[in-house]
Amino acid sequence: MLGTILNGPRDVRSVELPEPTIIHPTDAIIRLSATCICGSDLWPYRGINPVTEPRQMGHEYCGVVTEVGSAVKTVKTGQFVVGSFVISDNTCPHCRYGFQSSCEQREFMSGAQAVYARIPLADGTLVATQEMPSEDLIPSLLATSDVLGTGWYAADAARVQPGSTAVVVGDGAVGLMGVLSAKQAGAARIIVMSRHKARQELALEYGATDIVAERGDAGVAKVKELTNRIGADAVLECVGTEESMAQALQCARPGSTIGYVGVPHGVQFDGQKLFFTQVGMMGGPAPVRRFLPHLMELVLSRKINPGKVFDLELPLADVAEGYRAMDERRAIKTLLRVP
Amino acid sequence: MLGTILNGPRDVRSVELPEPTIIHPTDAIIRLSATCICGSDLWPYRGINPVTEPRQMGHEYCGVVTEVGSAVKTVKTGQFVVGSFVISDNTCPHCRYGFQSSCEQREFMSGAQAVYARIPLADGTLVATQEMPSEDLIPSLLATSDVLGTGWYAADAARVQPGSTAVVVGDGAVGLMGVLSAKQAGAARIIVMSRHKARQELALEYGATDIVAERGDAGVAKVKELTNRIGADAVLECVGTEESMAQALQCARPGSTIGYVGVPHGVQFDGQKLFFTQVGMMGGPAPVRRFLPHLMELVLSRKINPGKVFDLELPLADVAEGYRAMDERRAIKTLLRVP
Repeated sequence: MLGTILNGPRDVRSVELPEPTIIHPTDAIIRLSATCICGSDLWPYRGINPVTEPRQMGHEYCGVVTEVGSAVKTVKTGQFVVGSFVISDNTCPHCRYGFQSSCEQREFMSGAQAVYARIPLADGTLVATQEMPSEDLIPSLLATSDVLGTGWYAADAARVQPGSTAVVVGDGAVGLMGVLSAKQAGAARIIVMSRHKARQELALEYGATDIVAERGDAGVAKVKELTNRIGADAVLECVGTEESMAQALQCARPGSTIGYVGVPHGVQFDGQKLFFTQVGMMGGPAPVRRFLPHLMELVLSRKINPGKVFDLELPLADVAEGYRAMDERRAIKTLLRVP
Repeated sequence: MLGTILNGPRDVRSVELPEPTIIHPTDAIIRLSATCICGSDLWPYRGINPVTEPRQMGHEYCGVVTEVGSAVKTVKTGQFVVGSFVISDNTCPHCRYGFQSSCEQREFMSGAQAVYARIPLADGTLVATQEMPSEDLIPSLLATSDVLGTGWYAADAARVQPGSTAVVVGDGAVGLMGVLSAKQAGAARIIVMSRHKARQELALEYGATDIVAERGDAGVAKVKELTNRIGADAVLECVGTEESMAQALQCARPGSTIGYVGVPHGVQFDGQKLFFTQVGMMGGPAPVRRFLPHLMELVLSRKINPGKVFDLELPLADVAEGYRAMDERRAIKTLLRVP
């Protein structure tokens, strides 16, 4: 089958790989309906996260179950399923507490930029639809697997309340999903920090009320101006750099919370400074599994259209071009069509 | 009048000072009913916070109003009042949001280890009782001004829920008040990390269900054992050192929040580590003013007895011995009787 291997910095290839097989009795195999490239895939692609050996890429997925292990009880062959990018048993104390991304048996999904993928802990990880979804909903269903679930968690962790003012730092795909999520959570005002025209437009479509193109101190000043010098009630940090985190901290009002979902790279917090800022912090890998049934329902009932975040569609074989387009910011997010 | 001056490390003195006068029309003057020494007073006393010039000490207070400025509208001469250690107008957006400790006009109280004290922004800062409280309630009313309010904020920030498991890191006065507060918030299990017999006993009296005397890895292992390897639903960090914060982080379950109220000294957080720990952080100087009416009511109706945290009472003139006793951990907290 066709799969995707990252050999080293900027060396990603579409290659022929053996089809995955059941390894553990709790596994399932799915045939991907579509897959995609994540912003976090760019960290190793750019060599910022070291790549010491070739690795199979891809952790966002939806598709049809083709085989299940002997211990799989709820997931059945022929079902359409979506799963989280974090594998979880959904039964351990952390899962039951709603933090499936810290599951005692946690694994991070890989190998989903392919025709077939093996999903460990299938019963805990996968959510099936009642019937086969309409073809045009595939991009949005795929989005629930990570990018929407992660934006949703940013809004959830930041405790966006109805009628509140939210700031979204980052206009990448996760930031745009953060805008959609803050809107769904009832935010009255959603300020997105963005200076790319296409992204600004999509942000407005997803519910942003204000665009701040400035960065650094000028960006903070603009947010303060828009909030009567108070700052935001909730901040969604969707990047993970030192600069973006500083921006988030300075835009947040005392007593507010920053939901941070961009994996921090080179970010350090000074305890005393954070203390006197009096801003709460809640982050981590998104517990997408908690939100998945609700998000899939919102998509299936056509209440939200997260799939619009995919502004480039390529055949799976052209995965390398998909990475390049995102690396060069020519695309927000690339969907890969599976043959 | 008698007041207290810190001249340099370990050089604190009871001295004769001029009585304070109204400076701003929003000020009030109170005659202290009692005052006390705070754990945070030990930072400059020990020279850990530098002391560059002599300063008047004391920020916890209750007493009777003797004079008000021309702009003071609600506070009246002759009233018994308690105020927060943070001066606030109680009208700005941050105050109205419940974060009076980040008031736009914030000042930190000083000079309260004295017979009289000037309270800026009296209308915003002070809460009066209906009538003159009974003498035996003075220690508990004094406690609401900072130490109880701060322990209460730790429980509030950590989002202690009814039926939950809370861990309190630190058996100082604030930690003990954290135990009382977690109990009031309905925690079913309160694990306090303490290895001092007198403090353990008071913790048990305030509602602790388990004592962990071990520190470091052994302490964390004990907490994990007590919580079926899950960790705590809420952690109250009441110290502010690198060691205590590490302890707090390792005792907290994914998805829980650490309410941290000890001013961090030498504490740094690595963003990526904090991210994957998936533990929320909320701290800062306690917005005592938010809690004050409720806390005073709990004291006046004798539902709580925070004043028991004062295990040493001295005349104000013996303030130096009060600092020494706390520095040497002979006393948990010193109450100073005002002549």
